[in-house]
Amino acid sequence: MSYNLLKGKRGIIFGALDHNSIAWKTAERVHDEGGTFVLSNAPVAMRMGEIDKLAKKTGSTVIAADATSVEDLDHLISESMKILGGKLDFVLHSIGMSINVRKGRHYTDQKYDWTQKGTDVSAMSFHKVMQTLYKADAMNEWGSIVALTYMAAQRVFPDYNDMADNKAFLESIARSFGYFFGKDKKVRVNTISQSPTPTTAGSGVKGFDGFINYAERMSPLGNATALDCANYTVTLFSDLTKRVTLQNLYNDGGFSNMGVSDSVMDSITK
Amino acid sequence: MSYNLLKGKRGIIFGALDHNSIAWKTAERVHDEGGTFVLSNAPVAMRMGEIDKLAKKTGSTVIAADATSVEDLDHLISESMKILGGKLDFVLHSIGMSINVRKGRHYTDQKYDWTQKGTDVSAMSFHKVMQTLYKADAMNEWGSIVALTYMAAQRVFPDYNDMADNKAFLESIARSFGYFFGKDKKVRVNTISQSPTPTTAGSGVKGFDGFINYAERMSPLGNATALDCANYTVTLFSDLTKRVTLQNLYNDGGFSNMGVSDSVMDSITK
Amino acid sequence: MSYNLLKGKRGIIFGALDHNSIAWKTAERVHDEGGTFVLSNAPVAMRMGEIDKLAKKTGSTVIAADATSVEDLDHLISESMKILGGKLDFVLHSIGMSINVRKGRHYTDQKYDWTQKGTDVSAMSFHKVMQTLYKADAMNEWGSIVALTYMAAQRVFPDYNDMADNKAFLESIARSFGYFFGKDKKVRVNTISQSPTPTTAGSGVKGFDGFINYAERMSPLGNATALDCANYTVTLFSDLTKRVTLQNLYNDGGFSNMGVSDSVMDSITK
Amino acid sequence: MSYNLLKGKRGIIFGALDHNSIAWKTAERVHDEGGTFVLSNAPVAMRMGEIDKLAKKTGSTVIAADATSVEDLDHLISESMKILGGKLDFVLHSIGMSINVRKGRHYTDQKYDWTQKGTDVSAMSFHKVMQTLYKADAMNEWGSIVALTYMAAQRVFPDYNDMADNKAFLESIARSFGYFFGKDKKVRVNTISQSPTPTTAGSGVKGFDGFINYAERMSPLGNATALDCANYTVTLFSDLTKRVTLQNLYNDGGFSNMGVSDSVMDSITK
Repeated sequence: MSYNLLKGKRGIIFGALDHNSIAWKTAERVHDEGGTFVLSNAPVAMRMGEIDKLAKKTGSTVIAADATSVEDLDHLISESMKILGGKLDFVLHSIGMSINVRKGRHYTDQKYDWTQKGTDVSAMSFHKVMQTLYKADAMNEWGSIVALTYMAAQRVFPDYNDMADNKAFLESIARSFGYFFGKDKKVRVNTISQSPTPTTAGSGVKGFDGFINYAERMSPLGNATALDCANYTVTLFSDLTKRVTLQNLYNDGGFSNMGVSDSVMDSITK
Repeated sequence: MSYNLLKGKRGIIFGALDHNSIAWKTAERVHDEGGTFVLSNAPVAMRMGEIDKLAKKTGSTVIAADATSVEDLDHLISESMKILGGKLDFVLHSIGMSINVRKGRHYTDQKYDWTQKGTDVSAMSFHKVMQTLYKADAMNEWGSIVALTYMAAQRVFPDYNDMADNKAFLESIARSFGYFFGKDKKVRVNTISQSPTPTTAGSGVKGFDGFINYAERMSPLGNATALDCANYTVTLFSDLTKRVTLQNLYNDGGFSNMGVSDSVMDSITK
Repeated sequence: MSYNLLKGKRGIIFGALDHNSIAWKTAERVHDEGGTFVLSNAPVAMRMGEIDKLAKKTGSTVIAADATSVEDLDHLISESMKILGGKLDFVLHSIGMSINVRKGRHYTDQKYDWTQKGTDVSAMSFHKVMQTLYKADAMNEWGSIVALTYMAAQRVFPDYNDMADNKAFLESIARSFGYFFGKDKKVRVNTISQSPTPTTAGSGVKGFDGFINYAERMSPLGNATALDCANYTVTLFSDLTKRVTLQNLYNDGGFSNMGVSDSVMDSITK
Repeated sequence: MSYNLLKGKRGIIFGALDHNSIAWKTAERVHDEGGTFVLSNAPVAMRMGEIDKLAKKTGSTVIAADATSVEDLDHLISESMKILGGKLDFVLHSIGMSINVRKGRHYTDQKYDWTQKGTDVSAMSFHKVMQTLYKADAMNEWGSIVALTYMAAQRVFPDYNDMADNKAFLESIARSFGYFFGKDKKVRVNTISQSPTPTTAGSGVKGFDGFINYAERMSPLGNATALDCANYTVTLFSDLTKRVTLQNLYNDGGFSNMGVSDSVMDSITK
């Protein structure tokens, strides 16, 4: 599938870990649609080496950057403009991590150093990315910035732990910075709130398989896949959505507006 | 601008009154993108004759239908499938009318016969369109139905009068029917909540010019135009948004998530 | 339990059918708190005769009124002011009915005459009540109007049928009229979105028992009872919530902000 | 005004700085309603000495605590239970601070050490308070925890700076922790989203007077005062709202559901 929707557009894609990643699928689809980009990930994530395959496949350069380091981001952005030959049209932020989740600390028993670290990586990094882009005047007019989020920002999913709060923080940053990026630079900023997706990162959440199944049965069109998310992101990077900004957009087969489905009621009552 | 996003797709577009109409721009853009369609409007609206120009330009047939009449809708849908050569992939509902607005009756002084008529035309018609499509099994899998709405459904805009309530009713119908259309037919149903747009219909609202200006200044990217709306609708009709359903999607330059802008504060304080 | 929260306040309570009704419990609690009121119900509902017990118990007068008839409402309101000795401080609208639900017509197979009748009774009646109060200048400053609603207005509950759309319509009317009632008369207008409650009316919904159980397990504090709703309404009628208006307030043990609970996940996965 | 709504109830009130504080008014009203409590504030805030007047007036003890220190919170909570003679029924969190705001750093030019400090004080402190209460099993069943917030968490108010994101984070914590506090301890957790209020803290925000005026004109009932907020909090601490939890409750004269008011349109168009 290719429509040349992103022909001539340049950008940065954060967070492609392996071929299950939403960012990975997005990079593939952006490439199909004619966009060029730099791939970036944390040094530690890159050591796993998969990202080089993606770079080769899409003709991209990889630049390591710790997204919580303004210095790293400065370097990444200025290098990207050099490599790509001009200002940027799109940025994907697909970064998130909770040490409390990884180490199995319950939400009512947080280790706050870890909570703070998770907030920095998962939410504040988005502010840092945008502030660095904004100060460097690195985005073209009508450019588009997208961050991935999850509905735990609005509603309680007990096992999502402190990532719920990090995502709420992230979505607020999208609105707050989106105002200034829109007014001053004509750049839109949105978040996509995606169905639970069986990525390597997502699988870390306790009871994830059962939860995926629940979401599938609650959603009239079933869970959105990583490819669905990549396709949706392509529309947000394209010139067809120029006045969509400050929005949190659900790509979830309808889950977000369900109270209960027939399928879920059947499980409960039998 | 053309990406062949809708190549091979068939549909019905309701509500193209004249070249200012959002439905008119949408028909043009859908045509550009390779879609074919039947145009439909109320008999009374069609007598104005503009729609024939659009039909000629886009190679479309026009079929008159009162969208509050199930009989008319039945005829329209079965004829459309014959003319277009198969089941439908997309439908645009861009229909709304308030007699209380037209006749200048204040929201606190409604004539209820008129209110009821406005509800039938502006909201129940959407249920009727979908029920007729659903019963005739007229939509292809992964088809897409879009209705146009306005943010008065969520927040108070005093001059919008009873159209606010009609739009809230319409958006609820999108969710309620969208569940069954998704689960049973794999069809998505969404509404686009558009910036105030200087269409012939919109201009009927009291103080509309001042209001357009206010919305422009409140929105970090300015008001979305009719063309912006047409482009956004194209993405929702395309295969790139297959798992987006039951959503109310703001195409408004960011207005919906603004509390106040610097520009509006400047007007207020000086 | 009595705090004299409503001492000296006068009002009208619509919709007390029998002792399971939320309006019935509300009447009892308002009486406990020192308020006086007229009870009103549709003539057909009153023939069942239970309401006289409530009237006796609370020292109230009963006045029959079809809430879709402006004439009946005019009479009710002017008589109420006479009987109670002055303008009104509170009104409870607890009225709803769907013929499609009663007759078992599926949401995708509506009989539109019935749909329209349900809309008139369940939603437009609220506009009629408020317009009649407003025109008669029947509310005291800082008075409070409350209507009961359900979360199907925001999210899909398949068996709730066309009542979902009626409740969305009702909630919009609360906001739209609430603006004018606030600005012009200093009266607040809110809706309470209550847990599914085993009233005589609610029981008509298909699969209601299973659904009550589901809601109970999804809600961290369990379902709100009719008494909980009566208590909450008392706070909204009191002087302690003077600046709360245009709101839709969930009284639901937390259901509305749940994505999934541990208890529901347990049922699904086992 | 006193109804004995909180007779016999015990709690902690954080954040009473001076007689303009919402927490100060709340303490006075809780005292009027028969509740007893410990007052707490940061050591630095207490040095200003006003709080002793409040303590004297309400017969309360003051215990200094840095709400970002779990150790301080542990001490505060165990001491409070000793002083008050049992477990707690209510807690008010009215704590917020942004160094970026104080020092005049624009939202697009944050100093991230300050941002992180603001997040810790304004949002994470609420998690710390609840985690400490939860672990100490310090709340009675049907107890009530309230935090104060502002609508910048949902919509953009440019001068609110990074406090917007902190409030979004705070509201998410209320939902996330509210689930566990509800399920495990039958305690409700809510936030009140208050009109802009001319407190000593609020006045630090740039252009605050103009903004208060704007909000006043946008709200059909005008801005809610500190006293209105205190009264609303009393209802949430009372036994009349037992099943209200996980909610963000607007106490704002209707602002949150306004698109535009006649008064604001008048300013814009003239």
